[in-house]
Amino acid sequence: MTDLSAAAAFLMDNDNFTILLHTSPDGDAVGSGYALCHVLQQLSKHVRVICSDPIPSRYAYFTDKVPMQQFDDECVIAVDLADVLLLGTLREQYGERVQLCIDHHASNTGYAERNFINPMAAANCENVYNLIKQLGVPIDSITADALFTGISTDTGCFRYSNCTADTHRIAAHLIELGAAAGEINRIMFETKSRGRIEVERMALESIEYHFGNRCALMTVTNEMRQMIDSIELDGLAALPRQIEGVQIGVTLKEMNSDQYKVSVRTHAPINASAICARLGGGGHARAAGCQLHMSAEEAKQRLLGAVADEMEQSGCKG
Amino acid sequence: MTDLSAAAAFLMDNDNFTILLHTSPDGDAVGSGYALCHVLQQLSKHVRVICSDPIPSRYAYFTDKVPMQQFDDECVIAVDLADVLLLGTLREQYGERVQLCIDHHASNTGYAERNFINPMAAANCENVYNLIKQLGVPIDSITADALFTGISTDTGCFRYSNCTADTHRIAAHLIELGAAAGEINRIMFETKSRGRIEVERMALESIEYHFGNRCALMTVTNEMRQMIDSIELDGLAALPRQIEGVQIGVTLKEMNSDQYKVSVRTHAPINASAICARLGGGGHARAAGCQLHMSAEEAKQRLLGAVADEMEQSGCKG
Repeated sequence: MTDLSAAAAFLMDNDNFTILLHTSPDGDAVGSGYALCHVLQQLSKHVRVICSDPIPSRYAYFTDKVPMQQFDDECVIAVDLADVLLLGTLREQYGERVQLCIDHHASNTGYAERNFINPMAAANCENVYNLIKQLGVPIDSITADALFTGISTDTGCFRYSNCTADTHRIAAHLIELGAAAGEINRIMFETKSRGRIEVERMALESIEYHFGNRCALMTVTNEMRQMIDSIELDGLAALPRQIEGVQIGVTLKEMNSDQYKVSVRTHAPINASAICARLGGGGHARAAGCQLHMSAEEAKQRLLGAVADEMEQSGCKG
Repeated sequence: MTDLSAAAAFLMDNDNFTILLHTSPDGDAVGSGYALCHVLQQLSKHVRVICSDPIPSRYAYFTDKVPMQQFDDECVIAVDLADVLLLGTLREQYGERVQLCIDHHASNTGYAERNFINPMAAANCENVYNLIKQLGVPIDSITADALFTGISTDTGCFRYSNCTADTHRIAAHLIELGAAAGEINRIMFETKSRGRIEVERMALESIEYHFGNRCALMTVTNEMRQMIDSIELDGLAALPRQIEGVQIGVTLKEMNSDQYKVSVRTHAPINASAICARLGGGGHARAAGCQLHMSAEEAKQRLLGAVADEMEQSGCKG
């Protein structure tokens, strides 16, 4: 385990950084990567961010302001990346040569040479904020926008139980440093396409209740999936857990024929990560995921079985 | 205009406080009133909170912990109350003898003997927090829960553009002092009844688009209104403005036959308060309301007229 000052020293001592993001990069991954990239460039380092998937255009308000640089003999960093499996197509090239990892997932596999893993941070952007303070680089409005985006998106806009006093204090500081908080939150949370509203209605109709209404299972079909973009789709997974009395919200997203991406959200004390681990997945205590290659009916049965086992084991069944 | 230290001195010098809340009290009104009540009781004052409507039970986690006291010769305070019209049935008794008002509405009519109005505060609970600091009373977990509730609810859980660095910094401090932030946000924002989900679907179906999809008008019928409680109903008003491209979201809520309560939410630069003022109402720049006594069809026409006039005047039309 590396501490922040050692991580900062490693960054000061090296150059030509390639920063890796996980597949389907979210606000916290993109915010972490671009904030660190921008700050290292201010230290006259050469830096680029790469990802096996495209960077969503909704983050253009900060990604457009950070140029990607080209170089050989790279020094490899990963941010917000719990497992090399999440490198996607970049895994073969980079999986075994990550020199520094900055992450907040408790499930991080420790794949890097130097691992700074702080699961107390609601967003990995909190870790990057603290790292930037160690580096002594002033935070400008570009860095502030990137970090605020990660913090806001990974906490459901300061809503979830992972959000701490530190999270709010960092947000306050970033707003003072120029983060366009209201505008960022509007883009990330307040805007739904008309397609999203239609899909939301269809998804709500698909909900089945199990275990005395304590588990709600929602299905998103391939057809629904194609009506909206992937980020809006990801937001749907929050819906089942929002229903009164529901402790476990499960979203089954059809990817291809007989291929499902599953998202599990829970309320305490049910452990979402433990449910998904029973099916080969993982994540956080209240939000986790896995993939299932089987029919919808089989996938539902496997999932409900894992939920039942976890409820039993945690003494919450009955 | 009274300043905070004069307001604090007034509270120190008097006793037997009746704290008035507005009709349909929301989290900020209840949080402001009960936090101030609890703190004044800690100063051995006699205090009660009263309101023409019942205090919703969802705030029981702090309201249950603050006893209401009885006394004669009262000293009258109003919190989060912009206009004596909002006293409802208490107006006749108290409308002309409010001695101190603590509020954050720019539209406050200045009806009290002493008015502390700070529209920079996203929630009136920010003003009450600063007033409590002036009083020098330590904030315990009951006060922290009450104040956090007001701040969180009036900012849409730190989402809206009214939320400032100060808002986040106060939230951080309240969490450190024991506010159960995650649990409060879950109750206020993460929980929807199954009835609410059904009504939401019906309300979304009712949406009409006007002015090139820049205005979305949603109707909530009496029948829909009776399926859920009033707090859940209030939350619906946020939906129309969330639709991509919509700058003005209008919700028409049927109260009785030919009686409509209207809620207007806008994005900058459209002024919601100015739209509602054209129809005898008022509120904040991005969230305002009015009441219309006419048929649904007439109400829609009047509203769309006011929206058109305001768009024209602000140079946003066409």
